[in-house]
Amino acid sequence: MPGLTAYVGFYEICSPKKGEHVFISAAAGAVGQLVGQFAKLMGCYVVGSAGSKEKVDLLKNELGFDEAFNYKEEADLNAAFKRYFPEGIDIYFDNVGGKTLDAVLLNMRVHGRIAVCGMISQYNLDQAEGVTNLMHLVYKRIRLHGFSVRDHYHIHPKFVEFMLPYIRQGKIVYVEDIVEGLESGPRALVGLFKGLNFGKQVVDVSA
Amino acid sequence: MPGLTAYVGFYEICSPKKGEHVFISAAAGAVGQLVGQFAKLMGCYVVGSAGSKEKVDLLKNELGFDEAFNYKEEADLNAAFKRYFPEGIDIYFDNVGGKTLDAVLLNMRVHGRIAVCGMISQYNLDQAEGVTNLMHLVYKRIRLHGFSVRDHYHIHPKFVEFMLPYIRQGKIVYVEDIVEGLESGPRALVGLFKGLNFGKQVVDVSA
Repeated sequence: MPGLTAYVGFYEICSPKKGEHVFISAAAGAVGQLVGQFAKLMGCYVVGSAGSKEKVDLLKNELGFDEAFNYKEEADLNAAFKRYFPEGIDIYFDNVGGKTLDAVLLNMRVHGRIAVCGMISQYNLDQAEGVTNLMHLVYKRIRLHGFSVRDHYHIHPKFVEFMLPYIRQGKIVYVEDIVEGLESGPRALVGLFKGLNFGKQVVDVSA
Repeated sequence: MPGLTAYVGFYEICSPKKGEHVFISAAAGAVGQLVGQFAKLMGCYVVGSAGSKEKVDLLKNELGFDEAFNYKEEADLNAAFKRYFPEGIDIYFDNVGGKTLDAVLLNMRVHGRIAVCGMISQYNLDQAEGVTNLMHLVYKRIRLHGFSVRDHYHIHPKFVEFMLPYIRQGKIVYVEDIVEGLESGPRALVGLFKGLNFGKQVVDVSA
């Protein structure tokens, strides 16, 4: 599922082109890590954000991202994007919404595309944060597209055909976070919202 | 220009289908009035909003909209959309942004499309209003697309070929607001931001 979500979101929703500038939030997550690797395979410049030093290291050292940063250490996200994308962002793969999306909008390039896969920063708020920079959709003619893998199950065979050679050749790696025993499930679920997991959070109930 | 903008925004950006439910803000404006008539020609159900009784009457009685309402008289826009679109909105042609866009998002249908032509409610604010309901982009897999007619000048011949027969047959009408004399220009410009104009605001400097 995360693999197909990443495939659909990047190739079908973002219409990527070689050399484009790609930003991915929650980039060490189950979907984000694959989007980043797909974008690198296409010859894009790829930056990811995550919530810990360990995740940032994983993105840069294991998953081949050009750059990565810990969003919790950035007091001014707009300044961070200006630093990592002095020429602007063509594609934003959005897993978090909220303040990150708002700052990205300021830094998008003309004809940019934003795939909205999730908005995890907003799920547990009583009142969602307001996004104030939507005027940039008009200034820069940006497409912002929410999607669900549920609408795209029919391309699963195409996805498998695409993925298998890369996995066999070791050109795509996939990090999972496995906890043991059903009793670990609730803690693992809460951890998702705190950003404690690396990649797909799996609970092994046979342990 | 307003004609080509309406044509591009509706046919190219909104991907309309027969029978879909269409909402247009600033519907008595230069672009909105044509979008509504295009949508009616396609067999859509069409509702427009405007800022005065005279404009609402124009939309319903002269331009063939199914329904129209004065947004200034609606204390709760969400309730207004529920009344006019009990089954939800497929296409929103957005000329105003802000609170209207936020309330529309609550009432969109799955796979809805929003063309963002302008956000006139936001132009003169020191700080844009926050849009809080963007999660619905994911829930309903909505596409929100800013556009500019500047990117689409090449389809002008196709547009003229499409429009001429309808205009000759009187199936599309076009309301303009003409003030006389260059000295009327500044007042007419300010009037645009106050919503005083009907359709395209023209200043006739030969008068």
